[in-house]
Amino acid sequence: MKNITGGVCAAKGFKAAGIHVGVKTNNADKKDLALILADCDCAAAAVYTKNVVKAAPLLVTMDNLKDGRARAVLANSGNANACAADGEANAMRSCAAAAKELGIAPGDVIVASTGVIGQRLPVEVIENGIPELVSSLSYDGSDNAASAIMTTDLTMKQYAVELEISGKAVRIGGIAKGSGMIHPNMGTMLAFLTTDCAVSAPLMQEMLAEATRISFNRVSVDGDTSTNDILCILASGLAGNVEIAAQGADYDAFAGALGTVCVELAKMVAADGEGANHFITCAVAGAASEEDAEALSKAVISSTLTKAAIFGADANWGRVLCAMGYSGVVFDQDCVDIAFESAAGRVDVCKSGRGLPFDEPLAKKILTVRDVTIDITLDSGTAGCVCWGCDITYEYIKINGDYRT
Amino acid sequence: MKNITGGVCAAKGFKAAGIHVGVKTNNADKKDLALILADCDCAAAAVYTKNVVKAAPLLVTMDNLKDGRARAVLANSGNANACAADGEANAMRSCAAAAKELGIAPGDVIVASTGVIGQRLPVEVIENGIPELVSSLSYDGSDNAASAIMTTDLTMKQYAVELEISGKAVRIGGIAKGSGMIHPNMGTMLAFLTTDCAVSAPLMQEMLAEATRISFNRVSVDGDTSTNDILCILASGLAGNVEIAAQGADYDAFAGALGTVCVELAKMVAADGEGANHFITCAVAGAASEEDAEALSKAVISSTLTKAAIFGADANWGRVLCAMGYSGVVFDQDCVDIAFESAAGRVDVCKSGRGLPFDEPLAKKILTVRDVTIDITLDSGTAGCVCWGCDITYEYIKINGDYRT
Repeated sequence: MKNITGGVCAAKGFKAAGIHVGVKTNNADKKDLALILADCDCAAAAVYTKNVVKAAPLLVTMDNLKDGRARAVLANSGNANACAADGEANAMRSCAAAAKELGIAPGDVIVASTGVIGQRLPVEVIENGIPELVSSLSYDGSDNAASAIMTTDLTMKQYAVELEISGKAVRIGGIAKGSGMIHPNMGTMLAFLTTDCAVSAPLMQEMLAEATRISFNRVSVDGDTSTNDILCILASGLAGNVEIAAQGADYDAFAGALGTVCVELAKMVAADGEGANHFITCAVAGAASEEDAEALSKAVISSTLTKAAIFGADANWGRVLCAMGYSGVVFDQDCVDIAFESAAGRVDVCKSGRGLPFDEPLAKKILTVRDVTIDITLDSGTAGCVCWGCDITYEYIKINGDYRT
Repeated sequence: MKNITGGVCAAKGFKAAGIHVGVKTNNADKKDLALILADCDCAAAAVYTKNVVKAAPLLVTMDNLKDGRARAVLANSGNANACAADGEANAMRSCAAAAKELGIAPGDVIVASTGVIGQRLPVEVIENGIPELVSSLSYDGSDNAASAIMTTDLTMKQYAVELEISGKAVRIGGIAKGSGMIHPNMGTMLAFLTTDCAVSAPLMQEMLAEATRISFNRVSVDGDTSTNDILCILASGLAGNVEIAAQGADYDAFAGALGTVCVELAKMVAADGEGANHFITCAVAGAASEEDAEALSKAVISSTLTKAAIFGADANWGRVLCAMGYSGVVFDQDCVDIAFESAAGRVDVCKSGRGLPFDEPLAKKILTVRDVTIDITLDSGTAGCVCWGCDITYEYIKINGDYRT
């Protein structure tokens, strides 16, 4: 398997586009409507937010994907179409407008939104923009689509890989966006994947659920699980491989590659968390089970106090151990080792649950680097897990103290 | 029942003191050691953090309180004595030093600590300070004790009430401290209560658990449950009342008064949350059960995004509904009404799960007031609950980016 370029258009048979139509009223330079179109009918799978309050486009998409087939993805940024007047009607109008212009069935459109909750979607603006959007579709349009789904994101998030399945080159690629209201136990924020692999919708659903578990569900920016999270994948089958069977090497290879794409996109979401100065990786080893390791790691990357300490490049490891303590996992605090690592080095700060004397200037230097790892070892077993997050900064507060305007 | 002054010394038979001994090395003006002494042997009860990682003084206190009796409370700020070398030994040395100077048994001393995790307690400094601490005990020493347990707290937290039990005036009073690492599902941070009521330790334990449930466990500052939380109460019995029975009007009156003291102290903890600009009350009505109402209210006051919106005086109610959605409670999003209230007025922002047009300048004015209420009504039943929190600010990040120095 190798990393390739092309994002959501890397796989054979996918065009994409992204333009400004005016959902984002305050900035005409910012794209706000994205479209992904497959050349042929696709097997499709998706996972959604577990928030009880679900945005209208998710409800429409769930209905549209009941048959496991889709042709296009339409997504706007700037308005979440959640808890808003005429939510489902407007999501359906968006699908219908795109479907009409594309000459496909409205039920073959996946629709998603991201932005402010509770305000009516300006669906007329979307309808009016559809012709231009469709005319700008291209096989190298991934950048445009990736930027059109951004809200407070600072970076585009794209990733793609190529692997071999039954002697054929198969590609999986995708785009995603963060960057606030991000927390484990969800689908994700918006992430759209494509592949040219021949694979059935039920198998893909199974593999997507597993890939989500080990990627987007191991990321947290701020502990708030969004109403709008959706991760979906379209498979065109144009790679010409023998369709993947329910078990065997092909299944494992495709599932592994899908996991890689999801992990890399998830890491980009965490690294570009709202206002973030640091990308934090928390690696737990020696846990009794993967579930325990994940719960411990998630508690650490979600701890506001730990995030604030990393912001300040302060090796306050007591907050790491404290977060582990309220994670719900039972462990022996006398068997915990903690270290901080980055490109600037490594410093062991806690051994067997007790503080070690350590080189404070070195620790400060290590934690001043943007990408830092919190390395935790227990004595409870052989399981491990890695989760990803970011620090909390003045900028996060600023962004979210005045988000609607 | 009436509100009275005197804090932890309001009840008959309690002296208190607080001085600087040097645990807080960076500020000789800040008191860091508190002592509460009862004139006679007391029935005692306590609740502790549910964090798996428990600070050493809590383990020692649990052991000392096995007999349900105590005479004194010794507490230091500036060092948590958690995950630190010689933790239990040093907590026991602190008890022994106080006991020796007071002429009581070491097992009758409740010991607690608050401050940085993972650093060795400078127990010699505490031992050296005990004589001066004991000599400064007085019946009006509550202020000194309350200030000696403060860390990043800006205000002293004291409260006391007087009620009548079997024809006798009975008093309950206490002191508490916050202000970071505060989150529901815990004992609390440090809170020490006294009463002159005649009441057994087992009954008091029962009433204390219930009072905790409706007070400290309904507060959140930052979602981090501390390793050091403890709430305890000493009952001298000097009020001369007939000892409270397991059921009846006296039990109800005392339990109610105890609940009031805990609620008032808990509200002070939330209002003085680290860096807070706003005190947030979230009132939920119309829920199917008190548990549901509490889970919904806690999710809202714990939501980082909601806290950031209140910081910015931004009526971003979508975040309130989003937090309710991931609270774990099942409800109908189409039956939710939300309003913001303060001394500046009230604005209804969401009706039946949909956004209402509202007066933005009025909303801004309402949310600019320090004390704001988020008023939520569902259509699921008749249960309700109120929880308390605070906003998240630049100052919170600043405090916690550089806490250890």
